[in-house]
Amino acid sequence: MGKHYQAVLPKIRELSLLNASQALLGWDQEVMMPKAAAADRGDIMAAQAGVVHEKMTDPKLGEMLKAAKEETDLNPYEQANIRETLRSHEKALKIPQALITELTKLTSQATHVWADARGKSDFPLFAPWLEKILKLSKQIAEHVGYAKVPYDALLDEYDPGATVESVSQVLMPIRDALHDIVAKIAAAPKKPNKSILERHYDIASQEKVSRELVKLIGFKLDEGRLDISTHPFCSGTGIHDVRLTTRYMENWLPSATHGAIHEAGHGIYEQGLNHDYAYTPAGDAAWMSVHESQSRFWENTICRSHAFWEFYFPKLQTHFPDALMNVGLDDFYGAINFVEPSLIRVEADEVTYGLHIIIRFEIEKALFDGSIKVTDLPAIWNQKVKDLLGIAVPNDKHGVLQDVHWSFGGFGYFQTYLMGNLYAAQWNHYMRKDLPVDDHLRKGDCLPIRTWLNEKIHREGRCFRARDLVKHVTGEGLNPNYFVTYLKEKFGPIYNVVL
Amino acid sequence: MGKHYQAVLPKIRELSLLNASQALLGWDQEVMMPKAAAADRGDIMAAQAGVVHEKMTDPKLGEMLKAAKEETDLNPYEQANIRETLRSHEKALKIPQALITELTKLTSQATHVWADARGKSDFPLFAPWLEKILKLSKQIAEHVGYAKVPYDALLDEYDPGATVESVSQVLMPIRDALHDIVAKIAAAPKKPNKSILERHYDIASQEKVSRELVKLIGFKLDEGRLDISTHPFCSGTGIHDVRLTTRYMENWLPSATHGAIHEAGHGIYEQGLNHDYAYTPAGDAAWMSVHESQSRFWENTICRSHAFWEFYFPKLQTHFPDALMNVGLDDFYGAINFVEPSLIRVEADEVTYGLHIIIRFEIEKALFDGSIKVTDLPAIWNQKVKDLLGIAVPNDKHGVLQDVHWSFGGFGYFQTYLMGNLYAAQWNHYMRKDLPVDDHLRKGDCLPIRTWLNEKIHREGRCFRARDLVKHVTGEGLNPNYFVTYLKEKFGPIYNVVL
Repeated sequence: MGKHYQAVLPKIRELSLLNASQALLGWDQEVMMPKAAAADRGDIMAAQAGVVHEKMTDPKLGEMLKAAKEETDLNPYEQANIRETLRSHEKALKIPQALITELTKLTSQATHVWADARGKSDFPLFAPWLEKILKLSKQIAEHVGYAKVPYDALLDEYDPGATVESVSQVLMPIRDALHDIVAKIAAAPKKPNKSILERHYDIASQEKVSRELVKLIGFKLDEGRLDISTHPFCSGTGIHDVRLTTRYMENWLPSATHGAIHEAGHGIYEQGLNHDYAYTPAGDAAWMSVHESQSRFWENTICRSHAFWEFYFPKLQTHFPDALMNVGLDDFYGAINFVEPSLIRVEADEVTYGLHIIIRFEIEKALFDGSIKVTDLPAIWNQKVKDLLGIAVPNDKHGVLQDVHWSFGGFGYFQTYLMGNLYAAQWNHYMRKDLPVDDHLRKGDCLPIRTWLNEKIHREGRCFRARDLVKHVTGEGLNPNYFVTYLKEKFGPIYNVVL
Repeated sequence: MGKHYQAVLPKIRELSLLNASQALLGWDQEVMMPKAAAADRGDIMAAQAGVVHEKMTDPKLGEMLKAAKEETDLNPYEQANIRETLRSHEKALKIPQALITELTKLTSQATHVWADARGKSDFPLFAPWLEKILKLSKQIAEHVGYAKVPYDALLDEYDPGATVESVSQVLMPIRDALHDIVAKIAAAPKKPNKSILERHYDIASQEKVSRELVKLIGFKLDEGRLDISTHPFCSGTGIHDVRLTTRYMENWLPSATHGAIHEAGHGIYEQGLNHDYAYTPAGDAAWMSVHESQSRFWENTICRSHAFWEFYFPKLQTHFPDALMNVGLDDFYGAINFVEPSLIRVEADEVTYGLHIIIRFEIEKALFDGSIKVTDLPAIWNQKVKDLLGIAVPNDKHGVLQDVHWSFGGFGYFQTYLMGNLYAAQWNHYMRKDLPVDDHLRKGDCLPIRTWLNEKIHREGRCFRARDLVKHVTGEGLNPNYFVTYLKEKFGPIYNVVL
């Protein structure tokens, strides 16, 4: 550890500690805060963000980081700390503070307008706001700079190094493959009975089961929390305080269970970070695609697998005897793996989900290269849903207005969800070379699986960008074929069809 | 509003907003945080405190405040904002940062040592830590400066302008009066039956009753929260987000009800502050004595009054039919006003409580003027308890080690509790000149009482120091006789004795 590194480390930690305050303000806002305090909370969070911005753009910080960067005795974690903080510092300096303030104010109002517009299914109400957000986002892209096209700058925000080209290279090949699998499944004579999951499930028991499940897969509840919020999320203030939320619906079991498991997947990642580098980038999760690869791995690959339910289904039955006592394991397995084109992304199954993302990625790309206009969005949206999912969109509420992301300027975010699926499939392929995964699951033993993820992925923090991490762990670049093969091998038998 | 005032206002607000973040971190630590995160939370809160200190000691802030101070067109709220922020700025500049860091580190360890020592009833374990804390506190007093004696500097921290002389002037006259009342009550033949309150009280019903009670006295639950913590407190992030805690004991009803009411008294004060000056000193509560005057007023003067229970006791009976259906109102009223010398301050009744405080004030005064040594504390403590309360202290756990305050360096804090009682009695005396308080209470109508407090006390924020506020509101200085008279008039009839 060099002396310049030692000198700058407290400043790196300070930024992270102050961001932990901000994270708590955000968690509390969704889970605990009285609604009456919404405007005040906005002011507090803006003050907190202002402090972090001041410290992040401090020229002294830049000098110290540059001095540390020249040191030759830094280990990979220390190198990551200098590299990633310098990247954040330089990026923060590039965007004029006035532009950030303008976008923050705009989006804090726009999310309300969007909610209103969605409620009324009134796209023209939201359209002028979206125009402005898009305009400011393009300005930010110009300030930040980009590889080839402005949209690259937005993608880079959620996954450093990601570009339209690199994302397209992996997403486009699976577009047709997914479309084909969905069509074959739709034509299959065998149909699982989804209605099993729509029976009455007592909320108190759902809560008990959700806790049991997240504990079973290895989330440490005594170093975190599980609460309720409108939209499930994972947050917290550090390695020893990781907080999940889920939601309970009386007539739809997976909302609670797989919602909690998904967030626990994020949480297990956070709890598995390198404790020695807590509150520094090296002890922080490696951006969104890798994060989503963890949540989706546990939610789908593990907790929608037959082997997992061989162990846990009898236990689930004891929690819900009325709903499940006469249900067979295979019927339950079919129900939680029901595939059907539907309108709403967050309710989509494991197969059709990717098509929802591809629609959004194509639209964002076109919005940024100017080939489509905001006012054309509903028509374009509906056409793409028709083409890719084969269904008609009855209104904008169930179409172009369904997601919150654009109202907060989150262009570039959606693709990380599908990239997460691709990474998860690749982890799954290589993990099964090392471990008899299903044998462990049949015994309800998730430790070997978690340990594999801990050692190969979690501990690395931000030492690798996503595309380098996958090479480091599996020896090859991100390969979307693993995902397609995984889907075919899993859903062929469920639907008794050759995929 | 002058232009210098306008210029510095955002800086004043920023300090307050950042302190709101800190308040949330503190609330969460006690109510929500997993224990495993304690050390990390300390780091986050230290970073947050560091930012506030940096901003508070910024020379630019001082210049701006001094320029604003010269402006002649400031209203009393604006004047308070400049005066109080300048006071905090100058005080912060006087204490060397290294000394604050040393004390913070010392006390964060010392609270653990204290908890350990209390558990083992081992004063010598804690004594060396207390020596060091006292030494650093004396150093701070020297840096800050004081009126006559170093202890003045500590008193001033919790109540600006308070001195040993001014506090003694009001506390000493009631020392003998309280001692006399306690002795007469002890000799009275009539004894209320306290055991009524020790019956089985279902926790779920206690929670319902606590919510009903705080709502009844006017705490807005939809602009705040009521949760559980080991030690009840009131906190929050602003006027629209005021958070109370209480605790529930199955065999001791007042812990929940009067704990919640006490904190709601603090909370009603916070909710009654001037909304136009939110997140500035003018929209902040006027320090500790006035704060305690609000909590104790509601807890004791109102919610231990006969008139209040004439309205609410029948309702309480329906919540706890098994425990209370055969209990008469007067017996219940006697039980919640049971007076008896006891060892533990936080469990003391309304009469003996003041003696616990006087013991602590005399000891702190003597520690600071050097007339007693830390090592002599247990003997001195026990002697004073014997003299003032007439009971023997069996061990230090139930004696000198019972309170947490000294372990965090909170010298000067205790007296604000008793000062709060004195102020409350004076508010009560003058309120009854304006309002038929008991008539309102018999109808369960607390609004006129709350409105009186709102208009006369809450809205003033920090426009007045405590001693000036009482003159402003009642036309006379703080007069301890109101408290003594209140006790005599209340407890004489309960114990059927002339006090």
